[in-house]
Amino acid sequence: MQPTERTRVLRNTEQAAYDPETVGSILDAGLVAHVGIVHDGAPVVIPMVYARVAGTLYLHGSVASRLMRTLRSGAPACVTVTVVDGIVLARSAFNMTLNYRSVVVHGSARLVDDEAERDRAFRAVLDHLVPGHYDTVRPPNAAEARQTMVLAISLLEASAKLRSGPPADEPEDLVSGVWAGEIPLHTVAGAAVPDPAVVAGTPLPPSVRNLARFAPLG
Amino acid sequence: MQPTERTRVLRNTEQAAYDPETVGSILDAGLVAHVGIVHDGAPVVIPMVYARVAGTLYLHGSVASRLMRTLRSGAPACVTVTVVDGIVLARSAFNMTLNYRSVVVHGSARLVDDEAERDRAFRAVLDHLVPGHYDTVRPPNAAEARQTMVLAISLLEASAKLRSGPPADEPEDLVSGVWAGEIPLHTVAGAAVPDPAVVAGTPLPPSVRNLARFAPLG
Repeated sequence: MQPTERTRVLRNTEQAAYDPETVGSILDAGLVAHVGIVHDGAPVVIPMVYARVAGTLYLHGSVASRLMRTLRSGAPACVTVTVVDGIVLARSAFNMTLNYRSVVVHGSARLVDDEAERDRAFRAVLDHLVPGHYDTVRPPNAAEARQTMVLAISLLEASAKLRSGPPADEPEDLVSGVWAGEIPLHTVAGAAVPDPAVVAGTPLPPSVRNLARFAPLG
Repeated sequence: MQPTERTRVLRNTEQAAYDPETVGSILDAGLVAHVGIVHDGAPVVIPMVYARVAGTLYLHGSVASRLMRTLRSGAPACVTVTVVDGIVLARSAFNMTLNYRSVVVHGSARLVDDEAERDRAFRAVLDHLVPGHYDTVRPPNAAEARQTMVLAISLLEASAKLRSGPPADEPEDLVSGVWAGEIPLHTVAGAAVPDPAVVAGTPLPPSVRNLARFAPLG
């Protein structure tokens, strides 16, 4: 996929990627999207859950939400997902950085009103967080469906940026004797905490019991 | 602190907070800020490292960066920091949510050109990630300082939003026998990985050895 004028990464271009596989894998690894719109001439950035299905990113939210209504109007949007993989400590303050993977999507949202596509989006957003969990819960009823807007944004204008590996120090700093390296960071799931109203002995569903999306503790 | 028109949380207002202590503690807990600007009428959202010092949020970046130059011009900005604390699994798809803490800051950046304030900002951004580490590394030299723009954004127009605790299920779903609860998520630091050029036997600095900012593994 060729970058467009607004998706082309302008700096540290060796860290850029535009292929759908890289973009998709980062979106699948992320938890929260930071969704940007313009309101009264100023930017507004709000965290949201989301999901990717093939070349489409789905958002859902209340039909009463200002963000959702602005997106629905076709206003320009920017959706950014970032996964932090580590802190990179160099021998100089200047070369401190993060190891990370991020995706920036530019586009306009399309209202999803097809029943089957809406169902796929609901399922995808929940299964993005806990794969396979959607089948264990009650699907939206008619009233809930009426309260929920589903929006789709194409990934045609998406770019990725990735950094990994050790610090890039200045040659003259290598002899300073200062320790340098990476502190890896992982998102880890702790033990599931049952809702107080769960009847004792209710088994964890397999989607939770076998959750492999996050590094296990211990 | 009273919310302004643009910082007032419009929905789920019981989750909103505006006091500087709550805003500050969330900013201190976050890793990456998602910084929004408007470019050619469209939003652009970029992840950046940052730090908070009292009522000010600092960003730094290359003087050649389009984002930094736009911010420096005094253009309206929105800076959002989100910490995800857990996945909330309800008995219905509709009531699935995240436990999280987020801060949204509206404002315009001020160029920091005072030498002492610039130094404080450099230190704060590095120490935000690894407290106390700045004193172990080489500070910016004159050439590096010339390449780096430091910007300050006031936290006067900041709002926080927080959710914690179990799912909020519909009364009729409580008898469904479906498991519900929270999967806590933690950001955990793995063992530090030395740069290949670190001489064997170089000790870890105390800032890394005693790093308590992230939950320890195991």
